[in-house]
Amino acid sequence: MNEYNPNFQLDANGQLRHFLSIEGLDREMLTRIMDTAESFAGVVADQPVKKVPLLRGKTIVNLFFENSTRTRTTFELAAKRLSADVLNINIETSATAKGESLLDTVRNIQAMHVDMFVIRHGESGAPYFIARHVEPHVSVINAGDGRHSHPTQAMLDMFTIRRYKRTFEGLRVAIVGDILHSRVARSQILALNTLGVAQVRVIGPRTLLPVDAESLGVRVFHKMDEGLQDVDVVIMLRLQKERMRGAMLPSEHEYFSCFGLTRERLRFARPDAIVMHPGPINRGVEIESRVADGDSSVILQQVGYGIAIRMAIMTMAMHSKARSKAS
Amino acid sequence: MNEYNPNFQLDANGQLRHFLSIEGLDREMLTRIMDTAESFAGVVADQPVKKVPLLRGKTIVNLFFENSTRTRTTFELAAKRLSADVLNINIETSATAKGESLLDTVRNIQAMHVDMFVIRHGESGAPYFIARHVEPHVSVINAGDGRHSHPTQAMLDMFTIRRYKRTFEGLRVAIVGDILHSRVARSQILALNTLGVAQVRVIGPRTLLPVDAESLGVRVFHKMDEGLQDVDVVIMLRLQKERMRGAMLPSEHEYFSCFGLTRERLRFARPDAIVMHPGPINRGVEIESRVADGDSSVILQQVGYGIAIRMAIMTMAMHSKARSKAS
Amino acid sequence: MNEYNPNFQLDANGQLRHFLSIEGLDREMLTRIMDTAESFAGVVADQPVKKVPLLRGKTIVNLFFENSTRTRTTFELAAKRLSADVLNINIETSATAKGESLLDTVRNIQAMHVDMFVIRHGESGAPYFIARHVEPHVSVINAGDGRHSHPTQAMLDMFTIRRYKRTFEGLRVAIVGDILHSRVARSQILALNTLGVAQVRVIGPRTLLPVDAESLGVRVFHKMDEGLQDVDVVIMLRLQKERMRGAMLPSEHEYFSCFGLTRERLRFARPDAIVMHPGPINRGVEIESRVADGDSSVILQQVGYGIAIRMAIMTMAMHSKARSKAS
Repeated sequence: MNEYNPNFQLDANGQLRHFLSIEGLDREMLTRIMDTAESFAGVVADQPVKKVPLLRGKTIVNLFFENSTRTRTTFELAAKRLSADVLNINIETSATAKGESLLDTVRNIQAMHVDMFVIRHGESGAPYFIARHVEPHVSVINAGDGRHSHPTQAMLDMFTIRRYKRTFEGLRVAIVGDILHSRVARSQILALNTLGVAQVRVIGPRTLLPVDAESLGVRVFHKMDEGLQDVDVVIMLRLQKERMRGAMLPSEHEYFSCFGLTRERLRFARPDAIVMHPGPINRGVEIESRVADGDSSVILQQVGYGIAIRMAIMTMAMHSKARSKAS
Repeated sequence: MNEYNPNFQLDANGQLRHFLSIEGLDREMLTRIMDTAESFAGVVADQPVKKVPLLRGKTIVNLFFENSTRTRTTFELAAKRLSADVLNINIETSATAKGESLLDTVRNIQAMHVDMFVIRHGESGAPYFIARHVEPHVSVINAGDGRHSHPTQAMLDMFTIRRYKRTFEGLRVAIVGDILHSRVARSQILALNTLGVAQVRVIGPRTLLPVDAESLGVRVFHKMDEGLQDVDVVIMLRLQKERMRGAMLPSEHEYFSCFGLTRERLRFARPDAIVMHPGPINRGVEIESRVADGDSSVILQQVGYGIAIRMAIMTMAMHSKARSKAS
Repeated sequence: MNEYNPNFQLDANGQLRHFLSIEGLDREMLTRIMDTAESFAGVVADQPVKKVPLLRGKTIVNLFFENSTRTRTTFELAAKRLSADVLNINIETSATAKGESLLDTVRNIQAMHVDMFVIRHGESGAPYFIARHVEPHVSVINAGDGRHSHPTQAMLDMFTIRRYKRTFEGLRVAIVGDILHSRVARSQILALNTLGVAQVRVIGPRTLLPVDAESLGVRVFHKMDEGLQDVDVVIMLRLQKERMRGAMLPSEHEYFSCFGLTRERLRFARPDAIVMHPGPINRGVEIESRVADGDSSVILQQVGYGIAIRMAIMTMAMHSKARSKAS
């Protein structure tokens, strides 16, 4: 038991207090999160009453400075299935442009005796900034910040991989598309390396890869056929149309012909490879429908696992505080 | 017990699985819905705790592609009074113009292990399309699709009539206004005929009646005084201002003078006739305030019965699946 | 027990039925509200499960004709902590410009068997108008109407003062800023005088004070240093930028130099004076950060007390009806 922990996501006992980034969490912690999610996956999928009273009487605030119905919904549902009360608050970033007033907003809501903030913000680091200023009994969960990180998405991806591949050992995982602008990809790479896969590959045009990609612990490919060779997991990223122009790709069609995942290309991967995508998918842009809807695709399963993972993270963060209060 | 049922609103046991249209439901089923609503009407109106735990732990999604605070609220309240968890998701139709992406949206939410979709959509048939693609454990309720159908509104109207008239036998019912563009009217006519009223009449200007109105099983009138003669029930429809122009009616005043329901005109109906309206009412356009607020009006009672009917339909659809799962 | 009570906020037994204004409530009633809030303050701040089942099965509607995420959130949270079901309905004022259609809106929602309306409206008196027309079992809470009144804010301010000063007797309280346009200030002055403080002062430029300020039972000051002399409580008001122009103040800087609360100025008050603000604060406009975040500030505590006060008012109004139903 370490007396002092430089990673302020963890409390003095090494328990998860906030969940801001994969960075700073070790393999044991990521595994514990997935183990906890395992129990919730059963509740959510199989029980007629999909609710557990673990967070009854707790107040969880979805504080979204960037609109995202999709992500907000998964957190709302996870919180409700834990029997928590949920407040949804959407705030235009413009209204809180200054860091100072962001803090006033958070402190104000905190003063209503809430227990947890789920933060989505267009600026990288905003959830950290908030976590640094909340009271000891309040947890902060990062639901996506700027280009930095989207750690609950990465954890649900890890959970999906573990569900299908049972272990991370020896796995080859390819992430395909716009790595440069993707907070999801950054978090995935960190998590995959922490969990000890054999190889993480990124595949994409030069203009959509970070210049120092290798330093992230990945192998870089610019050709799909080479990059997909013998991989166990293919993670496709969504192509943002505005990025396509920045990448000087003449058209969606062009992108698809180079980096779209087709059934033919998927044959380069291992026969039992799974195909993942954080959603929403652009059919015919980064992935063809035959693959998205095919046997290898676990894209919709990811969504369901996302609820279980968020239930796990919320419960663990809330309980670490309960414990530290009691002690 | 029919092994095969061509109406896919019903399951193999003839139980209500989806609720998409009055079409295909027989008198027995409509009666069973109203009988079930009867028990909820008591809970909602008389009990201090207006809640039953029938759908505890179930997740109901109000997926509205057309904004309608009013209708959404009644479904939300019905679901909460059944102790379900409710998610409200509003989606601009523009974002899901292609059928394909509508389906992706639905499948994505479904993957969160939800139990029921309440769908409002500007295009006729959208709830059918969705119902055809959901998993066996998911129900779809139509909360209004294009000009096609608004079957929960029709059922609450039937329930209102039964509450005041006790039986449908021998009743004469007049529906007044823009029948042509009204999804409510189409559903009402079907339900009234299925329940065996003596006569369904429609009253309106030629431009606002379907050309083949009689084929729907109604008698057509173009004069209020004649159409209202001896009716037991008057159902007024809301005049949409944009329709008035299409009907080449020079003004609201003109419409009122021809088809507005006044106290004088109501005297043509039976002395104990009731006046209904799906709301919201246009005072002084299709109905005068003395009638809307008068003794014959049951307009506000309809709203309350709307909660009970929606509770009934939600419960029946959820239970049919539970039964089919158990068997 | 008075048979007839001219103040229709109270029922025949003198119990709180609606909560519309401080006007017409006596010291005993304000005290009872604060006493009730006292018990909730403990639940909210100290209990791990911040919920009591007092309003289980009740439906509370936040009917907001003016957008205010902040105020709506406090009412929503208060209702949820009482285990009530909450509906949030935002209506553009434009859609209900006519009083008649406002009433139709309210009657329609009421017909869904709701128990309480929390009303925010841009027009003074709207909650009164609604309260006059709801059914006997429905309560109306004023969450701010035009320039008229914001009584729950005033009550949470009184509760905050009592928590810190224990008694109102002998207290000197200064309210600083735009008194003229502030519904909060009007309600505060009434409450402070009803509770028997020694002196209520208002401080501000002539252009932001009512011409007959003294008739409200206050002493008027135009200089901060004089007005703050020996006060126990300083209540700062938010400066609305559009008012500043109306007051012909050349700039925010100018306003701050005359009426901003600085640490230096605060020294004119008693050493144990508390500083309050209804929020959101304009740092550097009406208050400097050293004061807002300083030891004298109880601004964030006010927010927490706001939940307890709203829980108290909701519970009392709901119970008065239960009693009158039973009798």
